[in-house]
Amino acid sequence: MSVGTCIFPTMPEIQGIQLGTACAGIKQTVRDDLLVIALDEGGVCAGVFTRNAFCAAPIQVAKANLAHNPRWLLVNSGNANAGTGQQGLQDALATCAQLAAWVAGKPEQVLPFSTGVIGQPLPVAKLTDALPAAVANLATDHWQQAALAIMTTDTFAKGVTQTLNLDGQVIHFNGIAKGAGMIQPDMATLLAFIATDARISQGLLQQCLTEAVQQSFNRITVDGDTSTNDAVMVMASGCSSAPEITAGSKALELFSEALLSVCKQLAEWVVRDGEGATKLIRIGVEGALTDKEAVQVGKTVAHSPLVKTAFFASDPNWGRILAAVGRAGVENLVLEAVQIFLDDVCIVSNGGRAEDYTEEAGQRVMDRAEITVTIQLGRGTACQEVLTCDLSYDYVKINAEYRT
Amino acid sequence: MSVGTCIFPTMPEIQGIQLGTACAGIKQTVRDDLLVIALDEGGVCAGVFTRNAFCAAPIQVAKANLAHNPRWLLVNSGNANAGTGQQGLQDALATCAQLAAWVAGKPEQVLPFSTGVIGQPLPVAKLTDALPAAVANLATDHWQQAALAIMTTDTFAKGVTQTLNLDGQVIHFNGIAKGAGMIQPDMATLLAFIATDARISQGLLQQCLTEAVQQSFNRITVDGDTSTNDAVMVMASGCSSAPEITAGSKALELFSEALLSVCKQLAEWVVRDGEGATKLIRIGVEGALTDKEAVQVGKTVAHSPLVKTAFFASDPNWGRILAAVGRAGVENLVLEAVQIFLDDVCIVSNGGRAEDYTEEAGQRVMDRAEITVTIQLGRGTACQEVLTCDLSYDYVKINAEYRT
Repeated sequence: MSVGTCIFPTMPEIQGIQLGTACAGIKQTVRDDLLVIALDEGGVCAGVFTRNAFCAAPIQVAKANLAHNPRWLLVNSGNANAGTGQQGLQDALATCAQLAAWVAGKPEQVLPFSTGVIGQPLPVAKLTDALPAAVANLATDHWQQAALAIMTTDTFAKGVTQTLNLDGQVIHFNGIAKGAGMIQPDMATLLAFIATDARISQGLLQQCLTEAVQQSFNRITVDGDTSTNDAVMVMASGCSSAPEITAGSKALELFSEALLSVCKQLAEWVVRDGEGATKLIRIGVEGALTDKEAVQVGKTVAHSPLVKTAFFASDPNWGRILAAVGRAGVENLVLEAVQIFLDDVCIVSNGGRAEDYTEEAGQRVMDRAEITVTIQLGRGTACQEVLTCDLSYDYVKINAEYRT
Repeated sequence: MSVGTCIFPTMPEIQGIQLGTACAGIKQTVRDDLLVIALDEGGVCAGVFTRNAFCAAPIQVAKANLAHNPRWLLVNSGNANAGTGQQGLQDALATCAQLAAWVAGKPEQVLPFSTGVIGQPLPVAKLTDALPAAVANLATDHWQQAALAIMTTDTFAKGVTQTLNLDGQVIHFNGIAKGAGMIQPDMATLLAFIATDARISQGLLQQCLTEAVQQSFNRITVDGDTSTNDAVMVMASGCSSAPEITAGSKALELFSEALLSVCKQLAEWVVRDGEGATKLIRIGVEGALTDKEAVQVGKTVAHSPLVKTAFFASDPNWGRILAAVGRAGVENLVLEAVQIFLDDVCIVSNGGRAEDYTEEAGQRVMDRAEITVTIQLGRGTACQEVLTCDLSYDYVKINAEYRT
């Protein structure tokens, strides 16, 4: 199931960035599961990574190598190389060295990424055997193949493309992402790769990405489980004829907005493809004292299994939303000031059911596939949005049978 | 489903405490759904209540009335009288006044408790119509009927009985509880009623209960949802011929231990009857810096939908436990010091899969209906246990169809 399907967009080439895929047969042999992304000399790369303490081996290597002007990204699906200890680290380094040998680069210029089952040794030989094919396959127009190669429980390939006009010159953005379960990014997320031909320094690019991720990938949750392998990478090739984007400029503002828009779209596709999802739920929290408080309330509601199963059942059992808000840990919450809406229907006001609420009005909203819950806390001006999906039989099925 | 069934124990009478039930027909008319508990003059009563900000109307009234030497508890199932605003408060007070009239007591000596659907008006007339029958039914030997009357989605009545010998004299404890969903008690819980004939002051009784709940009901979770209506009450009639339990005495220590034992047993029955539960999971966290940290790690694992579905599937997908520990927010966790066990099988050591771990050994443990996960953090001496159950299709079914 998914809430809508991403019709994979026609993506322009991003000059200076090539993608090549191959089938390494890590968990299946039907489709490609190995991706190499090559960034031409002179391009820059920024990234944010999972905060999970059991950070996977490839993420540890990618974090360290980010300082060495990375030129290649090596991505596999089907095995996360997480919880694999020292051996996992050696395996990740070995694959980087192999790729470096094939492309005549340095091992520390390769960033490795893996997703899939946790705790199983990375089948290094399968990966390295498939590397020559992936390298031979490198081309600027392989975006859809790349998006397919990084999928695990995803039901569709996720891609977003966008342009930005700067002084009559065009800057392009392409982004792909994977992720459907173990999704509650925390300062980072799942796997997403964004490419642009903008000219921008690594420092500014990192700053833009960190801010964009905070407002996009870090505002979604499928099941509250933060992965060991989350990463969002952005590569800027500098091949656009638009002027360089510099600190403090109007261009930087526009670039940041465009990057945020790409991140938000990709993040929303991840939720729409949430494991077993039948509904997309936007939880807007308004009138909070701080952004942190708003996110805390939003995530508490978004993680409540009772709220999520009610949405699955299209049951306007709004008391569960009220109960989740009540346990979100907001100090000195004045119940009488709280208002809760399902789309435009007010369900809670004055500390209880809204006077003019009717079960019919609630049912009408709950029958929709996309629903906005608005929670007005009435104590400040901060507002934040959290995106999630419902909890269905299929979520249990997918995760009970994941390894079979 | 449940993990084992409570064979309701033969409960002794507790002198000075009577129970009477009746069918008010609030949500169904097959079994009794109304309970009155009467405590003779001279007995004392202590309680702990939910910390959910949207604390239900009856809980607000019970908290206020606890200071007025309560003599009667009035409990209904099928309607929570939560999220009902001012009207809910008036309704709760009205039922207290009605019961007071029937027993010739004061309204403020009645403590009301409700569980069931949130957000629907309490059907006051149904309750008050059934009150005379419940009062007429008052007797010291109606414990099992009482346990049945307070059930909602519970699949069996939960009761525990225990004795304590003090100077050759016996003190009795009887306890009943209800609860299967919306279970993550926070300083309080679900509904549990414990009675003893001990002679003890209200202050000491309250202190013993607060400590006992912290180590029992506050260490269980079914779905992470803290209810609006949680309460644990203990009544002491003072009818035992054992000496009075006084501050600083050895008797107080023994009494506290016995009360904790009753609370732990009742709490465990609630988890065993967790909605859709097929497995009981004990999560022991050892080697933590603080108790708080130990509970935090235990609850993060206990709340992970991925961990819970793996248990449901009997799948030794231990990487999910490792990932949950990693995202539990423990600062400066040294991965190499962490060890994780499934019963006696070591699954994680040295930052990855334990060297001698085999899938067969993991599978052998996962096939069991009761499993202990031991997480050794290797950074301190604090240890705590959290109890939970798995996440099954039936959890989704029960909560998707709860109101139909």
